[in-house]
Amino acid sequence: MTDLNKLGQNAAAVKSLLQTLSPEVKNKALCLAADCLVKEAEYLIAENRKDMETAEQNGMSSGLLDRLKLTKERIEAMAEGLRQIAELPDCIGEVMEAFERPNGMKIRKVRVPMGVIGIIYEARPNVTADAFGLCFKTGNAVILKGGSDALYSNLAIVRVLRESLAKAGLPEDAIQLIADTDRQTTVAFMRLKQYVDLLIPRGSARLIASVVENSTIPVIETGTGNCHVYVDKDADLDMAVNIIYNAKTQRIGVCNACESLVVHSAVREAFLPRLAAKLREKKVEMRGDERVLEILPDCVPATEEDFAMEYLDYILSLKTVDSAEEAIEHINRYNTKHSECIVTENKDTAEKFLTGIDAACVYWNVSTRFTDGFEFGFGAEIGISTQKLHARGPMGLKELTSYKYLISGNGQVRG
Amino acid sequence: MTDLNKLGQNAAAVKSLLQTLSPEVKNKALCLAADCLVKEAEYLIAENRKDMETAEQNGMSSGLLDRLKLTKERIEAMAEGLRQIAELPDCIGEVMEAFERPNGMKIRKVRVPMGVIGIIYEARPNVTADAFGLCFKTGNAVILKGGSDALYSNLAIVRVLRESLAKAGLPEDAIQLIADTDRQTTVAFMRLKQYVDLLIPRGSARLIASVVENSTIPVIETGTGNCHVYVDKDADLDMAVNIIYNAKTQRIGVCNACESLVVHSAVREAFLPRLAAKLREKKVEMRGDERVLEILPDCVPATEEDFAMEYLDYILSLKTVDSAEEAIEHINRYNTKHSECIVTENKDTAEKFLTGIDAACVYWNVSTRFTDGFEFGFGAEIGISTQKLHARGPMGLKELTSYKYLISGNGQVRG
Repeated sequence: MTDLNKLGQNAAAVKSLLQTLSPEVKNKALCLAADCLVKEAEYLIAENRKDMETAEQNGMSSGLLDRLKLTKERIEAMAEGLRQIAELPDCIGEVMEAFERPNGMKIRKVRVPMGVIGIIYEARPNVTADAFGLCFKTGNAVILKGGSDALYSNLAIVRVLRESLAKAGLPEDAIQLIADTDRQTTVAFMRLKQYVDLLIPRGSARLIASVVENSTIPVIETGTGNCHVYVDKDADLDMAVNIIYNAKTQRIGVCNACESLVVHSAVREAFLPRLAAKLREKKVEMRGDERVLEILPDCVPATEEDFAMEYLDYILSLKTVDSAEEAIEHINRYNTKHSECIVTENKDTAEKFLTGIDAACVYWNVSTRFTDGFEFGFGAEIGISTQKLHARGPMGLKELTSYKYLISGNGQVRG
Repeated sequence: MTDLNKLGQNAAAVKSLLQTLSPEVKNKALCLAADCLVKEAEYLIAENRKDMETAEQNGMSSGLLDRLKLTKERIEAMAEGLRQIAELPDCIGEVMEAFERPNGMKIRKVRVPMGVIGIIYEARPNVTADAFGLCFKTGNAVILKGGSDALYSNLAIVRVLRESLAKAGLPEDAIQLIADTDRQTTVAFMRLKQYVDLLIPRGSARLIASVVENSTIPVIETGTGNCHVYVDKDADLDMAVNIIYNAKTQRIGVCNACESLVVHSAVREAFLPRLAAKLREKKVEMRGDERVLEILPDCVPATEEDFAMEYLDYILSLKTVDSAEEAIEHINRYNTKHSECIVTENKDTAEKFLTGIDAACVYWNVSTRFTDGFEFGFGAEIGISTQKLHARGPMGLKELTSYKYLISGNGQVRG
């Protein structure tokens, strides 16, 4: 079994150095790491194939298989992600605020690394490189715990990244992988509070619930996305069909995919047959309430569970409402605070929706698929936060930092 | 036993309304609440006296008794705190960032309330009014769980505050107090994740450890302060005596009080006798390492535990070091990441200390007693965060908010 305390000590030992590396040194190391990944693409794909074969034998769903797979293009994208991170401005040391108090003491609020970040994730090996890049750029050491499904892929990626650090004359322990994937090790990792400042779970709702239940380390919940598109009575119906088709089918295994359609009763007759015709192209199964079934008799009847479900598959639930208020209420009841969309030409209704919906990202006439650090222009992302503490929505570099106050004076004491 | 789900539902029911109250309505309600507290001072002091008598009978320490006590002046200060909060700018709805992406979608990052905030605290009844004021101003509902030592005081304060809300025509459930103070209720409260967005413990190290251990709600750790003052070889020794005297004795029962002195060996002979003479005025017990004992033979020998202790009493531990680096190492090993101070006239040494120390607030030639929301000019404070996630150091209004992204476009889909 992995000696987690040893990993914690390794990370602690490199923390001070990482915190003080110059932007130039970090960026050079990131580009070198990118080059090494591309150079080792064949090795990475060969190791990934071992994981893919096991996953196929175990009957993994198509959505999850898609997440697991490494291709030359995806490795290029990983490397490009690291290069993009190198291009981004360095925020460590930034003076966020500076002010003076009446007693003459000067206060500066300065951005600093978190310290050591732990990441627990499932079958997405690209997270390994992303996580390293973002944590390294922000002066953090990272300890990764990937899923058993991606073990060979992750071991290979981490090996390449550690070798690239050594080549750059930097400490390999800036990135460490926990090689044991059993539950006991995972739970012990969640309690490594002495060494880990922040724990980020990425993966299924079950994984995230387990981290929330067990962790004593501060957590940022990420990723579970039961995302809705609401088609208002004043919607441009062509636009609505396009947005739902995109949000549902462009990539099904991702958290910002649409899982549920909410439709205003006034447009259901005009809209639902057009939508059904389009979704048939991708064989999307539709599960609707009674008023949807009146229009689409072939539709599967939806249960209460359907409205709460993140399918990550070619399935869509459909709910009819009689007002935008009812849509807001329905969505706030069933959503996971991730990404929600209204399609309408009515500005007032849109404003009501944007204000009333409790979610990280609320869209007006835009596909929910854009909830993503790259799409937001953050250069990359470590995950999509669905909690309200510290970070919400796509998390980029700044979300991996903290701050401290530096106060200077000439002997001030409190009266 | 309190029906915590009911309390959660009550808070949830007023959440949307609180979120949309205008600044004027909120500020008027805060001033009315302040007036009511002052008007009811005699009632509050009478109720507080019940708590004080029990506490004295139970042999509560002088530091804790000081925290518990309500006086006319402290009630005025509570009311003044609420009025100051009313004066502060309203940050809810603030557009924190606005940008457009190449595909034409417009993204706004907008400040929103957390929603429902839970606060678990011990024998400081002034927290009750502070917590209400800050949470209400930021559009949050608050559920409070005070200590059994302050039960009568807290019931009285919450009663006055709820009555003031009713007078203002606003929902009383903006503030709720859990009247049961048993451990079972407290632990159940820590798991009310369905309704509570953020949990803030304020109190002893033991309370905070219990919240970290048991909570499934995101937590901000606050308050435990094993604060150090390091007297460098280049220190102005008069300033050093003043700062330590202030940081140690001005108010002993608070988290930003100095608990430990670290002294450079080169100045121990010149400095320690002067310090001892000054601290004798307040009968401070000094516990030193061997090299301190050489200079101050009357000093109690310090143990390893002394260096890790938050005394909250007239006791000071003393450690000798041979360099600023050794001081930094010692402090980073034993501190609670709260407030640390260097006294030196050497700018380079000061910069090394400010960078190297891992704490929310690092002081150069200023007393640690200034780590406080009022002293920082935040208008009030809900606590001092000692963690790195979300908020660090004194927490004012903005630290009680989250944000969401609002994205608008004209039919953008992801390619």
